[in-house]
Amino acid sequence: MTTNSSPQLWLYDTTLRDGTQREGLSVSIEDKLRIARRLDQLGVPFIEGGWPGANPKDVQFFWQLQEDPLKNSEIVAFCSTRRPHTNAASEPMLQAILAAGTRWVTVFGKSWDLHVTTGLKTTLEENLAMIRDTIEYLGSQGRRVIYDAEHWFDGYKHNPDYALKTLETAIASGAEWLVLCDTNGGTLPHEVTEIVQAVNHHSSLVADKAQMKIPQIGIHTHNDSDLAVANALAAVMAGARMVQGTINGYGERCGNANLCSLIPNLQLKLGYSCIGEDELAQLTEASRFVSEVVNLAPDEHAPFVGISAFAHKGGIHVSAVERNPLTYEHIQPEQVGNRRRIVISEQSGISNVLAKARTLGIELDQRQPEARQILQKMKDLESEGYQFEAAEASFALLMYEALGKRQKFFEIKGFQVHCDLIAGKETTNSLATIKVSVNGENILEAAEGIGPVAALDAALRKALVKFYPQIAEFELTDYKVRILNGNTGTTAKTRALVQSGNGHQRWTTLGVSTNILEASYQAVVAGLEYGLLLYSQPKALFISSEKLKSQNTTVSES
Amino acid sequence: MTTNSSPQLWLYDTTLRDGTQREGLSVSIEDKLRIARRLDQLGVPFIEGGWPGANPKDVQFFWQLQEDPLKNSEIVAFCSTRRPHTNAASEPMLQAILAAGTRWVTVFGKSWDLHVTTGLKTTLEENLAMIRDTIEYLGSQGRRVIYDAEHWFDGYKHNPDYALKTLETAIASGAEWLVLCDTNGGTLPHEVTEIVQAVNHHSSLVADKAQMKIPQIGIHTHNDSDLAVANALAAVMAGARMVQGTINGYGERCGNANLCSLIPNLQLKLGYSCIGEDELAQLTEASRFVSEVVNLAPDEHAPFVGISAFAHKGGIHVSAVERNPLTYEHIQPEQVGNRRRIVISEQSGISNVLAKARTLGIELDQRQPEARQILQKMKDLESEGYQFEAAEASFALLMYEALGKRQKFFEIKGFQVHCDLIAGKETTNSLATIKVSVNGENILEAAEGIGPVAALDAALRKALVKFYPQIAEFELTDYKVRILNGNTGTTAKTRALVQSGNGHQRWTTLGVSTNILEASYQAVVAGLEYGLLLYSQPKALFISSEKLKSQNTTVSES
Repeated sequence: MTTNSSPQLWLYDTTLRDGTQREGLSVSIEDKLRIARRLDQLGVPFIEGGWPGANPKDVQFFWQLQEDPLKNSEIVAFCSTRRPHTNAASEPMLQAILAAGTRWVTVFGKSWDLHVTTGLKTTLEENLAMIRDTIEYLGSQGRRVIYDAEHWFDGYKHNPDYALKTLETAIASGAEWLVLCDTNGGTLPHEVTEIVQAVNHHSSLVADKAQMKIPQIGIHTHNDSDLAVANALAAVMAGARMVQGTINGYGERCGNANLCSLIPNLQLKLGYSCIGEDELAQLTEASRFVSEVVNLAPDEHAPFVGISAFAHKGGIHVSAVERNPLTYEHIQPEQVGNRRRIVISEQSGISNVLAKARTLGIELDQRQPEARQILQKMKDLESEGYQFEAAEASFALLMYEALGKRQKFFEIKGFQVHCDLIAGKETTNSLATIKVSVNGENILEAAEGIGPVAALDAALRKALVKFYPQIAEFELTDYKVRILNGNTGTTAKTRALVQSGNGHQRWTTLGVSTNILEASYQAVVAGLEYGLLLYSQPKALFISSEKLKSQNTTVSES
Repeated sequence: MTTNSSPQLWLYDTTLRDGTQREGLSVSIEDKLRIARRLDQLGVPFIEGGWPGANPKDVQFFWQLQEDPLKNSEIVAFCSTRRPHTNAASEPMLQAILAAGTRWVTVFGKSWDLHVTTGLKTTLEENLAMIRDTIEYLGSQGRRVIYDAEHWFDGYKHNPDYALKTLETAIASGAEWLVLCDTNGGTLPHEVTEIVQAVNHHSSLVADKAQMKIPQIGIHTHNDSDLAVANALAAVMAGARMVQGTINGYGERCGNANLCSLIPNLQLKLGYSCIGEDELAQLTEASRFVSEVVNLAPDEHAPFVGISAFAHKGGIHVSAVERNPLTYEHIQPEQVGNRRRIVISEQSGISNVLAKARTLGIELDQRQPEARQILQKMKDLESEGYQFEAAEASFALLMYEALGKRQKFFEIKGFQVHCDLIAGKETTNSLATIKVSVNGENILEAAEGIGPVAALDAALRKALVKFYPQIAEFELTDYKVRILNGNTGTTAKTRALVQSGNGHQRWTTLGVSTNILEASYQAVVAGLEYGLLLYSQPKALFISSEKLKSQNTTVSES
């Protein structure tokens, strides 16, 4: 889609700084480094790493990147202007910025007179001096400066003359980019269009007059009005050339502009060049990688990269989309590394079951009685609280069962679990005893574990590994429990979802019971069974067991 | 904000039809009725109830509403045009629509030639006849018709002449509204602006010529490009007067336009009149009500109505927002029934702790050593995996503890849990034994439960209820378990979040342990303790224990 003639846009990722302001998100230095290297692979030109000096974690982070630098991206240090009535050169904060050793520094300053007088409690004139001194000092130390005009849009609406003066100061001091920030996220797209056009016009005049290079405009938006992506697009269409945002839209309150939505919109729909095509095809993977590192569940309904983004549920859609994807999909999912998916759910008709069978490589015909049996069994289980939408491996087992193809690797005869806690002592281990039959042979095994599910899991593996040595490679990668009928408390049904992996593939299974241990055990058992099935029927392939791509793709120069 | 002179917009909610296409969402008839009545209270003019005839649940739903109608809103039945080469009057589907007994019916028809020829497999001419016959027949039976032009924007882009012909047909057949649908969600705001303007112009000409009333334009958008709200706003600014969407943006794939974002944008920012001011102040509650009924966790970061939408985390923000909220908030949270909130997190400084204390009604001064102790304790616990952001009741207990104000209602000495499962038999109950001390008296109690957590909970209540009879009123309203370090499986740390209630208030507590039972038990114990605290210190009030508002507010005529 992008060609050599596509106009270039510069992406600026702030996941590691503004993104970490999201409630519930916290990252270690190691997490930050992993994310930075992933963004580097993706070909994001600017990565804002944090505010060295404001917290020790960020100081460490920049030091580590000096030892082992990024390959493609510029890592950017972020800071405020100097404090009122100080000297930039003697600000310890700015010394920490220089020590971070980046080529680029982003300085944020106040645009809104109200913030100057009530926030900083200084004069409008001093604020201009703070902007000037900070940018000039960093320039004198060999740094290239991006100027973030904080609260730009609100400031401009309240006092355009003063707001423009702050930008004039930044231009005259040598800032190369002027980034207009909708810090409170309250601006509407048509306002963004007008104001960006006005700034573009004004800053060209000012730069010309001052005989400075005309700085380029950037945009930094927040999602408080559900318009962060639209506002960024509006700014680009009005002339902005840098787009700031975060992976998965993480950020304070309602988040920042989501780069996972912006990049495909800009590149596939508006024809700008942001990253390479191959890198664009890694976007879904990058989104999920970041959500894993920050330990937040991915948003399944996220545009472009969500697991539901190209999922088809209604019966009409399913048959039509199989005939002609264009009729029900706005882009090809593969362009952003996502996949079409047929959803199995309560509303599913027989056509969904057939389509699902096809993606599993199973021959199933509408006229076969098994097709209806599978649909019926699925509906019965769903009425008991099973939900196969997120547990496709369990659905695959159900299909194999109905078709008489489910291999009996083992059979559970029963188990016992015992836990004991004495206040003030370290938690004693849980003890599980399990009886399992393999090829007619009964095995009784016991194991301890840190919790009851761990103990059960350990006992089961211990019993099975001599028959199926590949079990040693399996691991539980995620484990979630949800109460089903919210108003009956601890006696309600629980649904356990277990994600398992073998280093190459991942798959999800589920269990449902009023007993949390039984639900967990069902899911663990199905996870082991499906893992064994992958060895005996390796062709069974679907999204949740998709082979994890290697992450050493080289990044182009785009 | 809205005055008598504000231009009127008509909201059209499709949570109960398009919203239920969301993957993972399923509703009973009872759920649908509860949601319809809540929307009725909110003053939404049109509520699309479903497609009677397409599924038995929807037939029932409309019958029940005929028995006990809504007070303010029009309930709307939804259907397609007749099938190719049939007679509208003899279509069983349309008979089911009439039997639903609504004043208004929404008919959707094909706008995109490709869908007619490859989807319906009929001629372009027959599609026009299908639109005409269906609308005319429903009109002849006394129904008022809204025409949903499916795939409008894609159809118009591919073949504007044919697309406009479908609208001309709908106008000539008596449709009162033409709703332009971006069914695949791929359209950009500037395209919406252009196309809506073109349609508005064209349909006025056509209606004039045909001497028909000029139909009004509506907009129906999807979020596949993260632009559903922006697209709806663009359409309104280009002349659309009906806005379709769903509560919380539920819908297929990436969802529909979110009414919880659209209403405040339209009403507070663009000055349109949608619902009454008092109803707008119920929006947050309505959003959470619907998410509870459909049993999906609310999106904490949702614009306007999310629990984080007005949450302040960074230290600078917190002190500034307390001085002047306008500087960091785009609207007053109370206008949409939300609240400002100070977040407790790893990044918190002492100012957050102080601000939080104030919202809890606790006097705490920066110079008190306890303030720093609380911050330190919180940071220590967070490094062990505790997260207080979603468990403010646990944080309150921590504060009371540090201040020496934590009342010792009871003390747990220890517990034992035993579970037994024999394959092929019904699950045997779990048995829990607990030793607890109240006012120096040791109580040993045992109880059975359907699962180990239920058994523990039952034993604990049994031991305590004779001392604290109010415990009989407490209930567990939600219970979630999350694994913390995703890569270590069942031996990883688990965090249990328990939401408790007493019929008036709800509060959330947490527990962390490698043993799922211990984590759960910690959270259950803290929940009981906080509930008892609410009786002895009823003034302690914060968002998670906010008094649930009664839902019998009368709806104005807006």
